[in-house]
This record gives sequence, C-alpha cells and structure tokens, in this order.
Amino acid sequence: MSTPSSSSSSLDPAVAARLRHTADGLVPVVVQQHDSREVLMLAWVDDEALARTIDTGRATYWSRSRGEYWVKGDTSGHAQWVKEVRLDCDGDTLLFVVDQVGAACHTGDHTCFDADLLHRVDG
Amino acid sequence: MSTPSSSSSSLDPAVAARLRHTADGLVPVVVQQHDSREVLMLAWVDDEALARTIDTGRATYWSRSRGEYWVKGDTSGHAQWVKEVRLDCDGDTLLFVVDQVGAACHTGDHTCFDADLLHRVDG
Repeated sequence: MSTPSSSSSSLDPAVAARLRHTADGLVPVVVQQHDSREVLMLAWVDDEALARTIDTGRATYWSRSRGEYWVKGDTSGHAQWVKEVRLDCDGDTLLFVVDQVGAACHTGDHTCFDADLLHRVDG
Repeated sequence: MSTPSSSSSSLDPAVAARLRHTADGLVPVVVQQHDSREVLMLAWVDDEALARTIDTGRATYWSRSRGEYWVKGDTSGHAQWVKEVRLDCDGDTLLFVVDQVGAACHTGDHTCFDADLLHRVDG
C-alpha cells in the first residue's frame, strides 16, 4: 500500500469486470461465520467497498439507508475479519466468510436471523 | 387448500406487512443447507413466491432474468425442501433453511459459491 500502483481503494479490474451489479452499482453479500457456518447477515458492497474489504481485511459495506461506507464494527466494536471472498456462479452475489467479533446484529443478537422465525416445518 | 379462505397462494397479511421489499416488490433469500450449514445460493421472492413456498414446502422463487416463478428443482430434480423460514432484523432479507436434493447450482456444483474463490487470507 506504499506505492501508487497498489492503491488501497481500487478493485482489481479483472474482478470488477466479473461482478454483475444492480442498477445502483451494488452487489449483495452473504456473510457467514467461518467455523460455526452460521449465516450472520446480508449486506451490500460497491466496487470501492469490496476493494477496501480485501485491502484491509475488515468487512466494509455500502449502507443503502445512510448512503455511506460502513466499516463493520467501527461503532459497535463488532468487527468482521474476512477470511474468504467468494463469487457465485452468476457473478451477482458475494459470500464473505468471516470471523465475527461479538454480535453480528445491531440488536445484540448473534445473527440478524435469530429473532424472527416466520415458519417451521415440523418433523 | 380446499376453501377460498385458505388459498394456497396468499401470504399471511401479518407477514406481508413486515417485509421490506425492493422497488420491484422483491426480497432476497439466503438459502442454507440445514445440516452442513453451507450457504447454497441467493434467490429472490415476491409475496406470492413466499406464500407458495410456505404452502407447498418447496422453495419457490421469482426469476428476475426470466420474469417468472420458478420452483427450484422442477427442471433439474434438485428440489429444496424448506424446513425454516426466517426474517432478518430489518425485515428486508429472508433465510430459507432447506434440505437440498442433489446439487444446488445449475452448473452441477454443490453450492453456487464453490467455484470462484476471489480472495483468501492466509493463516
């Protein structure tokens, strides 16, 4: 990160070209805990957020509600250290395999899917 | 499903009211294998697809590319039997916990994230 040719906020063009973005320039990211394999949350990145994630090792997203970049854990301390970044077969969804510090959910729940079971099939 | 009051394709209004849809009326669904906890794929539902999923027990999505409903496995035989439907803290993402028959990915891969590792942190 010390030379102009390795900017910390520029996504490898070969990677960028393979992403299929929404009309807003975003790609959804499924976030999974590496050891328990829990699905922690869904978030969104643009190319810049993905580049920052790869460069820093800290999951960095685009907040659609606030319209700004968001380094997970900067406010809460509940960082996500990214171990793997995977792209799906269609190029339109990312998977971050992470090591989550503390609770993933802003409610304090371990995952964003803990609280609300809409439907369960018995047996 | 034999009376008009229990239509097989009408989402419980109390559930529908809690979903935060995209401008297109859709909600993304993270699909996870119940036992291995692998993330299999990301797909999209509207209220009708979610209602059909709950009513039939078979994961049913809205195909954004084809503009039609899509019962997973109807072509491939690789059905997803849905064991749990969860809603996230913001009401804008669903999690289907499923029992996947065969390969989840249309490429024949077990999951849609198997083939393309963009980045890995060593150690």
